[in-house]
Amino acid sequence: MYISAQKAAQIDALLMGDHYAFSLEQLMELAGLSVAHAAADYIRQQWQHAPPRVVVACGPGNNGGDGLVAARHLHHLGFHTCIWYPSGARSALFTALLTQARALRIGVHHTAEQVALRRCDVVLDAIFGFSFDGAAGVRQPYRRMIESINDSAAPVICVDVPSGWHVERGDVHEVAIRNARALVSLTAPKLCARRFEQRGGAHYVGGRFVPPSLCEALDFDVVRYERERVITRIA
Amino acid sequence: MYISAQKAAQIDALLMGDHYAFSLEQLMELAGLSVAHAAADYIRQQWQHAPPRVVVACGPGNNGGDGLVAARHLHHLGFHTCIWYPSGARSALFTALLTQARALRIGVHHTAEQVALRRCDVVLDAIFGFSFDGAAGVRQPYRRMIESINDSAAPVICVDVPSGWHVERGDVHEVAIRNARALVSLTAPKLCARRFEQRGGAHYVGGRFVPPSLCEALDFDVVRYERERVITRIA
Repeated sequence: MYISAQKAAQIDALLMGDHYAFSLEQLMELAGLSVAHAAADYIRQQWQHAPPRVVVACGPGNNGGDGLVAARHLHHLGFHTCIWYPSGARSALFTALLTQARALRIGVHHTAEQVALRRCDVVLDAIFGFSFDGAAGVRQPYRRMIESINDSAAPVICVDVPSGWHVERGDVHEVAIRNARALVSLTAPKLCARRFEQRGGAHYVGGRFVPPSLCEALDFDVVRYERERVITRIA
Repeated sequence: MYISAQKAAQIDALLMGDHYAFSLEQLMELAGLSVAHAAADYIRQQWQHAPPRVVVACGPGNNGGDGLVAARHLHHLGFHTCIWYPSGARSALFTALLTQARALRIGVHHTAEQVALRRCDVVLDAIFGFSFDGAAGVRQPYRRMIESINDSAAPVICVDVPSGWHVERGDVHEVAIRNARALVSLTAPKLCARRFEQRGGAHYVGGRFVPPSLCEALDFDVVRYERERVITRIA
């Protein structure tokens, strides 16, 4: 059930290949929506009064893009949301996602000082995903970003992989998210999610768009979802 | 609360303009997902056992595109679904949407004979939307399509506007869907939805992505949604 980094890359390549024909934009919209629904479900269970501010920490790649989409949907779900995005948009798609968020008056910040992270905030960690390679360490400004989140002691909901974690071996690197409370795996849990579950974290899977024939071709489990839910909680 | 055809066109133009920066692909994905959730909700209430086959009747424009997306999500929601699409894809986006559906082994048919519509089926009517102009009558093959649906006496769930209805004045044309049981309005109900409600039909609104500032700018109501639902039933 838990997949390697290589298999996660194969899933994405197949989804966007000729046979399944998804675009990155479409997958990011559906993934980000799932992340927002999972985060909303978790937050509503933990904070029955006074829902916190959600700080969406976005990295430079597609995990960050999922975060930009999730921030917009979280706003529509009724949460006070801001985006922390040091890298800035690097393609037309990311520019559009930022414009969509700004049009909802979601604040977009570049530095830790601008974000002013507090212990009462919830952080949605969309810094690094399954293509993170920890061998070279975490480069700036993402190292500072992870350290600021750890220093704040704010609870963290992670998108696909807790940032800085080894995708397969888990929390083995020096610079990594320490206060992960919930994880939203996209399409299928990565191997590091086992370690996450062993620590008692809440674990959701999102991706009610993965064709069963693709699960079969790459030998990973079809996720079951209830009624019209786009996420399912598995731990 | 109920809007004109002109205002519906303005909403779409603004959503895809520089300020809000949505792409057609993104809006179609979110709209189609809403349609699938509303159809699933309605069908589950009406058919407690033996869920029917859902025949998704798609027209040549964007209403048809919403149908192609909805067919895919309905499949993921557990419904036996097929697509009736006489026109065939007319752009790369529509070709991709069809490929995505076919990869789920959703049948795609061109003619009424291939579809073999039965009274026990449910039809999702995505033939014409808010840009339909009834003045010139309904051209072929869509006229035949509407007549076949009426002849089958199958219950119909309509996307945005019952096909053949005048967007504002309702069921005033000779060739039009007669057996509409449910309506899924996208972003905001069109004026014809009043007539639909007066006949006792179930009425859903989908579009939990419309920026409140856009509602304000064009003077139409912000729709309220519960928890993580992407649709709301208003009648």
